[in-house]
Amino acid sequence: MGTIYGLGLGPGDPDLMSVRADRLLRGARHVAYFRKAGRTGQARKIVNGMIPGDAVELPMEYPVTTEIPVSDPRYNVALSAFYTDCTARLKALAEQGQDVVVLCEGDPFFYGSFMHLYERLRGDTPLQIVPAITGMSGAWTATGNPITWGDDVLTVLMGTLPEEVLASRMAQTDALVVMKIGRNFDKVKRALHAAGLHDRAWLVEYAQMPDQSVTRLAEAGDRVTPYFSIILVHGRGRRP
Amino acid sequence: MGTIYGLGLGPGDPDLMSVRADRLLRGARHVAYFRKAGRTGQARKIVNGMIPGDAVELPMEYPVTTEIPVSDPRYNVALSAFYTDCTARLKALAEQGQDVVVLCEGDPFFYGSFMHLYERLRGDTPLQIVPAITGMSGAWTATGNPITWGDDVLTVLMGTLPEEVLASRMAQTDALVVMKIGRNFDKVKRALHAAGLHDRAWLVEYAQMPDQSVTRLAEAGDRVTPYFSIILVHGRGRRP
Repeated sequence: MGTIYGLGLGPGDPDLMSVRADRLLRGARHVAYFRKAGRTGQARKIVNGMIPGDAVELPMEYPVTTEIPVSDPRYNVALSAFYTDCTARLKALAEQGQDVVVLCEGDPFFYGSFMHLYERLRGDTPLQIVPAITGMSGAWTATGNPITWGDDVLTVLMGTLPEEVLASRMAQTDALVVMKIGRNFDKVKRALHAAGLHDRAWLVEYAQMPDQSVTRLAEAGDRVTPYFSIILVHGRGRRP
Repeated sequence: MGTIYGLGLGPGDPDLMSVRADRLLRGARHVAYFRKAGRTGQARKIVNGMIPGDAVELPMEYPVTTEIPVSDPRYNVALSAFYTDCTARLKALAEQGQDVVVLCEGDPFFYGSFMHLYERLRGDTPLQIVPAITGMSGAWTATGNPITWGDDVLTVLMGTLPEEVLASRMAQTDALVVMKIGRNFDKVKRALHAAGLHDRAWLVEYAQMPDQSVTRLAEAGDRVTPYFSIILVHGRGRRP
């Protein structure tokens, strides 16, 4: 049987892919990736020019992204059927002896979409995960300031959480990463204010990509920001 | 002036270094790294065989590691003088127009030692940070289980924290990473028991290195484990 590779691409600059990921991609015969219908897809964009010309591409198009709220039961039903279908396509290729590289933004096991295929494939199909630099690591590097020192506690929160949960978790941590911003931006800002962290927060958009933007949140104004933006508060722990 | 590179090596397998880090290292003329006096040093070990034969190596030897407790004021005094001395050596090379690659285990801005040189050099000397795969990412990949799903909160704790702080933070999180284990192992285990997480915890030693060991903590027994071991509890968030 072939092997399905969950190939971490890192934050967005192909120069920050691992040597292993780079080698696997450049030798790939089948390359699969998620995308929104009608779009190129962020993962596919990152590796533009790196996929061998004769490789077969398998776009996997989400049936819904933001059209149905995550809390609506129909969201889970649609996503679950989609992941089951993708799994069948990948498994069929593996059973023909083909290796398949599945492109994963960031690190595959850290809030990744490939995990949903991985859980369905494990046991049946040879699987390998290639870890990668996380988007948050790309973001804190972009700020030019270390994220954690000494005994700092780091908390990673999703902007999709309720405002009061965000505020109470923020108030208790030394260093903070908030992901999945987009339409949660105002809520996250209110929670940062409530936790007394707004003035220390940074907004990083398109970390390690050509459009990278690094702004103090207090200076970001009322802009609209992408879902994949990252908000950071740096720790201030022990520094000999 | 030359540039000082904080070069993230990732968790330990050179195949998991970034393409950029690999290229910079293989073209380096000066390579600096921290180590305990009389030892090879973990960072230097990772890149064995990759440093050009004619490159100059600059080991930077810690004056203390575990001989003085971190809480003893003499610890900070000794470390501070050491970092100042290292800074002077690196700055002198940069002023001669030489680039210097400083090897950093894991990701340079995530609980790294190079940060102490970076803070002293910034403003005076051209600096570049090459982010890398964190040790924790290498560890959760090694367990074969994703660390975070959906809206999971991830908390990263240092084993050096007081037991009651560890236990209370552990009790509030969905997914957990504990670093800096070593002589804090028993304390961390007691805190995991108090938080009801001991049975779900994994111990990863030497993640992504030849001696890698992945064990359920409940089956780890009374072993002695290295300072750089990582304890994980995987999140159980939303999975369509």
